[in-house]
Amino acid sequence: MANSPSGDSMLDRLVRILDAFDAQNPTLTVNALARRADVPRATTYRLLESLVSHGLLARDADGQVRLGMRLWELANRSASTLDLRQAALPFMEDINQLVGQNTQLAVLHEDDVLVIERLSRPGSVVNQANVAGRMPVHLTSMGMALLAYSPASVLEGYLERHGEAMVARHPKLRHELAEIRRTGYATFDGLIDPESTGAAAPILDTRGHALAVLAVVVPRGSDLLPAAVMALQTATRGIARALAPATEH
Amino acid sequence: MANSPSGDSMLDRLVRILDAFDAQNPTLTVNALARRADVPRATTYRLLESLVSHGLLARDADGQVRLGMRLWELANRSASTLDLRQAALPFMEDINQLVGQNTQLAVLHEDDVLVIERLSRPGSVVNQANVAGRMPVHLTSMGMALLAYSPASVLEGYLERHGEAMVARHPKLRHELAEIRRTGYATFDGLIDPESTGAAAPILDTRGHALAVLAVVVPRGSDLLPAAVMALQTATRGIARALAPATEH
Repeated sequence: MANSPSGDSMLDRLVRILDAFDAQNPTLTVNALARRADVPRATTYRLLESLVSHGLLARDADGQVRLGMRLWELANRSASTLDLRQAALPFMEDINQLVGQNTQLAVLHEDDVLVIERLSRPGSVVNQANVAGRMPVHLTSMGMALLAYSPASVLEGYLERHGEAMVARHPKLRHELAEIRRTGYATFDGLIDPESTGAAAPILDTRGHALAVLAVVVPRGSDLLPAAVMALQTATRGIARALAPATEH
Repeated sequence: MANSPSGDSMLDRLVRILDAFDAQNPTLTVNALARRADVPRATTYRLLESLVSHGLLARDADGQVRLGMRLWELANRSASTLDLRQAALPFMEDINQLVGQNTQLAVLHEDDVLVIERLSRPGSVVNQANVAGRMPVHLTSMGMALLAYSPASVLEGYLERHGEAMVARHPKLRHELAEIRRTGYATFDGLIDPESTGAAAPILDTRGHALAVLAVVVPRGSDLLPAAVMALQTATRGIARALAPATEH
């Protein structure tokens, strides 16, 4: 791959350019893009030309830059999460209507919770999760449920890299994880937002490992919680069945 | 940008590699990938290394290649369709439950109908639309509704490029488009699948142009159609309101 004088490959720069956009910054001026991506301004202008012509970026009428529809199309039409999302969406709709609070679907990815889908209702409690956003494992019920149902090697690897932050927040971690596995769900009060309680149940593969988690966020202290947990546990079993090959039904 | 001896840029090859995957081919062997992307096999192996290390592609345990979660994350967290999708999803759930048939959201993109979201029900009629899949404008109610509510320049540009195919299928095109604008929706029987009827209503911006369309597919000859159209027209107005700046409510 062609490298710039700094040893930066074209692909490094491309990924940093795409990474410069997020939910808070869906459009950027070219100068802001160069700064956030840490790519020289002249190089950014030159790359921009090709990226726009390939549809990976787009220019608004006012000259601002945003991600292109072609990028969205390429990334989504065979996404590995597509089956999971299609299987989960009808159940998420049911929970969203029955429980009346935000419902989200997430996976463990590179030591973070990656939100795959989120349905929200007007009037739901504050919720920090965004589609394709990342959240810390140790500060979410989603992360704790994913960890409790991970293969031992994944759990130990995670703890090697993040044990300190985890144990500072969860001094009785082993006990908590065992308790999540015993009850089949994770729930924590106000880990991120003091006003809310999260609850998450795993969608399990045939070996009993979490493929994903389904979660709701309810107001802290809400008497909705036991019913919401039961809805989650019913839905996650339905999703697992919908995902399993027909012969296993 | 560094070019190969054939004048192919790195970005050309990258886009062709990503483009080799689709709903029917979510995983590929490296050889199949090289063939479908029309990239020499040795170059594909070399590029694969970097693409996997950047998370744009991933390798399965059996050596097959698929799109990486990082690509999905980068493309989705600030997608320009995110607001549209978030505004439309609750209405799509309602229609999906009330009408009990597939519901989809689409935009006009590069002379095709690009499906942004799709909700389906078990037992729905056959439906060719996939999330992030493209469909021909002249063979879908979605495309015809999008065209009828496009700015004149978009409509004329489309007809210049695709007038022949369009008029072969829709000899009274101007009349059909006027009729769609008069009634506020498009409906066609069996344009793609002889067993089904599609109906689509536009989500309009403040100038009266379509930002997107909302559509259902019902069994051909179903007496559900008038009610489904009314549900679509109610939902599209709700979505347009949800998308408008607060001051315009």
